[in-house]
Amino acid sequence: MARVIREYPKGRMEAFTDGVIAIVITLLVLDLGVKAGAEDDLLQAILDEWPSYLAYFVSFFTVGAFWLRHHAITNAISRVDSAFIRLNLLMIFFLSFLPFPTRLVAEYLEDQDAERVAVVLYGIVLLLAAVSLNLLWRYAARHRRLLKADTSDEEVRELDESLAPSLVGYVVAILIGLALPRVAVVLYLLMAVLIALPLGTFRAAIQRA
Amino acid sequence: MARVIREYPKGRMEAFTDGVIAIVITLLVLDLGVKAGAEDDLLQAILDEWPSYLAYFVSFFTVGAFWLRHHAITNAISRVDSAFIRLNLLMIFFLSFLPFPTRLVAEYLEDQDAERVAVVLYGIVLLLAAVSLNLLWRYAARHRRLLKADTSDEEVRELDESLAPSLVGYVVAILIGLALPRVAVVLYLLMAVLIALPLGTFRAAIQRA
Amino acid sequence: MARVIREYPKGRMEAFTDGVIAIVITLLVLDLGVKAGAEDDLLQAILDEWPSYLAYFVSFFTVGAFWLRHHAITNAISRVDSAFIRLNLLMIFFLSFLPFPTRLVAEYLEDQDAERVAVVLYGIVLLLAAVSLNLLWRYAARHRRLLKADTSDEEVRELDESLAPSLVGYVVAILIGLALPRVAVVLYLLMAVLIALPLGTFRAAIQRA
Amino acid sequence: MARVIREYPKGRMEAFTDGVIAIVITLLVLDLGVKAGAEDDLLQAILDEWPSYLAYFVSFFTVGAFWLRHHAITNAISRVDSAFIRLNLLMIFFLSFLPFPTRLVAEYLEDQDAERVAVVLYGIVLLLAAVSLNLLWRYAARHRRLLKADTSDEEVRELDESLAPSLVGYVVAILIGLALPRVAVVLYLLMAVLIALPLGTFRAAIQRA
Repeated sequence: MARVIREYPKGRMEAFTDGVIAIVITLLVLDLGVKAGAEDDLLQAILDEWPSYLAYFVSFFTVGAFWLRHHAITNAISRVDSAFIRLNLLMIFFLSFLPFPTRLVAEYLEDQDAERVAVVLYGIVLLLAAVSLNLLWRYAARHRRLLKADTSDEEVRELDESLAPSLVGYVVAILIGLALPRVAVVLYLLMAVLIALPLGTFRAAIQRA
Repeated sequence: MARVIREYPKGRMEAFTDGVIAIVITLLVLDLGVKAGAEDDLLQAILDEWPSYLAYFVSFFTVGAFWLRHHAITNAISRVDSAFIRLNLLMIFFLSFLPFPTRLVAEYLEDQDAERVAVVLYGIVLLLAAVSLNLLWRYAARHRRLLKADTSDEEVRELDESLAPSLVGYVVAILIGLALPRVAVVLYLLMAVLIALPLGTFRAAIQRA
Repeated sequence: MARVIREYPKGRMEAFTDGVIAIVITLLVLDLGVKAGAEDDLLQAILDEWPSYLAYFVSFFTVGAFWLRHHAITNAISRVDSAFIRLNLLMIFFLSFLPFPTRLVAEYLEDQDAERVAVVLYGIVLLLAAVSLNLLWRYAARHRRLLKADTSDEEVRELDESLAPSLVGYVVAILIGLALPRVAVVLYLLMAVLIALPLGTFRAAIQRA
Repeated sequence: MARVIREYPKGRMEAFTDGVIAIVITLLVLDLGVKAGAEDDLLQAILDEWPSYLAYFVSFFTVGAFWLRHHAITNAISRVDSAFIRLNLLMIFFLSFLPFPTRLVAEYLEDQDAERVAVVLYGIVLLLAAVSLNLLWRYAARHRRLLKADTSDEEVRELDESLAPSLVGYVVAILIGLALPRVAVVLYLLMAVLIALPLGTFRAAIQRA
C-alpha cells in the first residue's frame, strides 16, 4: 500500500537547522582555556594554547561554510518532504558531532601519533557531513516539485558545481592527513576560509583604497 | 466564573520547541571524550568509549524522531491555546531531561547492576515524553478548532496511527530492560533509526543503481 | 534635540527571547549527575541527589511559566520600540542568571546555613525577573500604539491581573525563606506548577473518565 | 567571468544571528560558581567572586548592546547578499569568542600582571566585533539595493553616527587598559550600560513619580 508523500512548508526545517548550527558554532568556545598557573605569564600561557585556537578557528568557519551552503540550497526550494527532512537530520548529525574531533585535534596536535588519528577522524566527519549535504541537494534537484517555480536549470547547475568540490577536497585532505597531519589541517583551514570569509569584499575595498 | 479560552498563532510555540530540541540534540556531544593518557593509542582510546557513542547515537536520533513527529503534528494545526502550550511544555520537560539518563547509560553500560537502572530510567523518560506527545496530539484532534480547516479525518487517523506504536515500543523495551538491559538499548536504537533515518530513500537509490 | 522614537516589528524580539529562554531551560540539565562510585547502587545514588532534581524541576517550570506569560504579553502587542526591547533585555538578564542560584540551591539544600542564602538569592533573582516582566507589560499597556488595534481594555486588565500576583508571591517566599528555606522552595514550586502545568486539562480529562 | 550576485531574503541571516547571540549571552552563566568549602559562609563565598559577576554583567550587556545595534541595522535592510552574510559571520565569530576573554577577566582581575593581558585581550575582541559591525553597516549603506525602499538618507546618517562612537570607545579603553586595567573595565561597563539599559525610561518614570 503506497504511502502518500507529505509535503511541508520549509520554515521549521530551516529554523531547526539554524538553531543546531548556531549552537554548534557557539559551543566551540567552551573548550578554550589556559592551564592552571597561567597567572605568572598569561600572554605566554595563551600563546601556548595555539592548537586550540587553530582548531577553534577552522571548525568555526567550516561550520559557517556549511551554513552558507545550506542557506543557498534552501533558498532554491519552497517545500520539503519526509525524505528531505530526514536527509537534513543526517547532515545535522555529522555537523553536531564535529566538536568532538575538534577537541581531539586541539588536544593532540603536538602529539606525533595521536595527531594523525585526530586529524583523520576530523576529516572523515567533515566528509560525511559534506556527503549528506550533497545528497540533500541532489534529492531536491531530482524532485523538482520541491524547488521554487522560478529556479532555473542554470541555478541548479551552479549549485551542483559549488557543492561538489568540497567532497574531493575532504578526501584529499584525509589521505594527506594519514601521512602529514598538519598539512591536512592547513587544507581544512583553506577550504573553510575560502568559502566563509568575505575575501572578495576585502579585495575590492583594498583596490578602491 | 468561566475563563475565556485564548487562542494564539502557533509560531512562537514552534520556535520555542525548535530551540529546545536543537539545544538538547547538540548538547549531547559535550559528554563525548577520551580518558586521560589516551595519547599513547588514541584510536584504541576512542574505540574503548563505544558505550558513549552508542548512547549519543541513540539519543540523537530519538530526539530527532520526536522532532519529526512534532513537526507532523504542528503541520496539521493552525492555532494553539493555553492547554496545548502547557502540554507542549510538559513534553519539552521530558525531552530536555534526556541528556541525564543518556549520560548514565554511556557511563554504566558495561556495569552489571548499574546498567539495568540506567537503561530502565532512560526508557521511562522516553515513555513519558511519548505519552506527552500523544496527549498533545489527542488534545488537538479533540479540539478541531485548533486544526487547519483542510485537515481531513484521514490525516487525523494517520497521525493517530503513527504516534501510538512508540508507546507500546517503550513499554516493551522497559520491561525487557529489567532483565536484559542491552537488548533494550538495541530496541531504543531500532525505534529511533526506523523513524529518523531516510532508509526508504537509501533503498530507492540502491534499487535505481 | 528630541530623538525620533523608532518602532520595529516584534519578530526578532520574540525570536531572541525564545532563543534565550530555550537555552536557559535546557542548560539546567547539565548540572544533574551522580557522585563517583555510584555504580555500586545507582538507584540509591540517583535518589540521594533529590535536591538537584527538585531544583531542576522548580527552575524548569518557573522559566516555562515566564515564557508562557511573555508569550501572552507579546501576543497582545504588534510592535516594539527601543525602550521595550531594553526592558525585555533586562528581563532576559535576570532569567538567564537563574541557573546560578539553581545550582546553589541544588548543592546546599541540605546545609543548614548555606541553604538560607541560596534560597533567598534564588527568590531575589525571580522577583527581579518578575518585576522586569511587569515593567515590560506596564510599558506596553501605557503606550497603546504598541498594542494590537483589536486589544480590548478587558484584555489589558486581564493581563494586569495575571502578572501582579507573582510579585506578591515572590516577596512572601523570600521573607519566609529567611526563616524556613525549605518552605520557600515549596512556594517556588507551587507558583511554577500552578502556572505552567496543564492542571485544568488533566482535571477535565479525569472528570470525563 | 563575472559571477552573478545572488540576493536572499534576510530571514535566515536574522534567525541564525539571533540564535548565536542568544547562546553566547546565556552560556556566560556557566562560568559562575563558588569555591569548594563555600558552605561555611556561602554569602561571603559569593561576594568573594565579585570579579566573575562583574565580568558576567559587562559581557551580558555588551553582547546585548551588539544585538540592539544589529537589530537596528537589519531593520533598515530588506535583503542580503553573499558578501553581507559573510561579513555578518565575521561579526558572529568575534562575538562568540567573547566568553573566552570574559573568563580570563573573571579569573585574573585581581592579579597584577595577568589582569592587564586579560583586559586588553577583552577589548581587542570587542573592537574587532565593533569593526565588523561597522563594516556590515557600511556595506549595506553602500549597496542601496539591500536597503528598504523607504529608508531615508536621514536614517542612514543616524545609524552611521550611532555605530561609530564605540570604535573610538574601545580603542581608548584598550589604551587605558595597558596602564590601568580596572579603569578599562569600568569603561567597558559604561559603554554597555549606556547602550543596553533602559535608562531613559527609568528617568522618565522617576520624573513622573
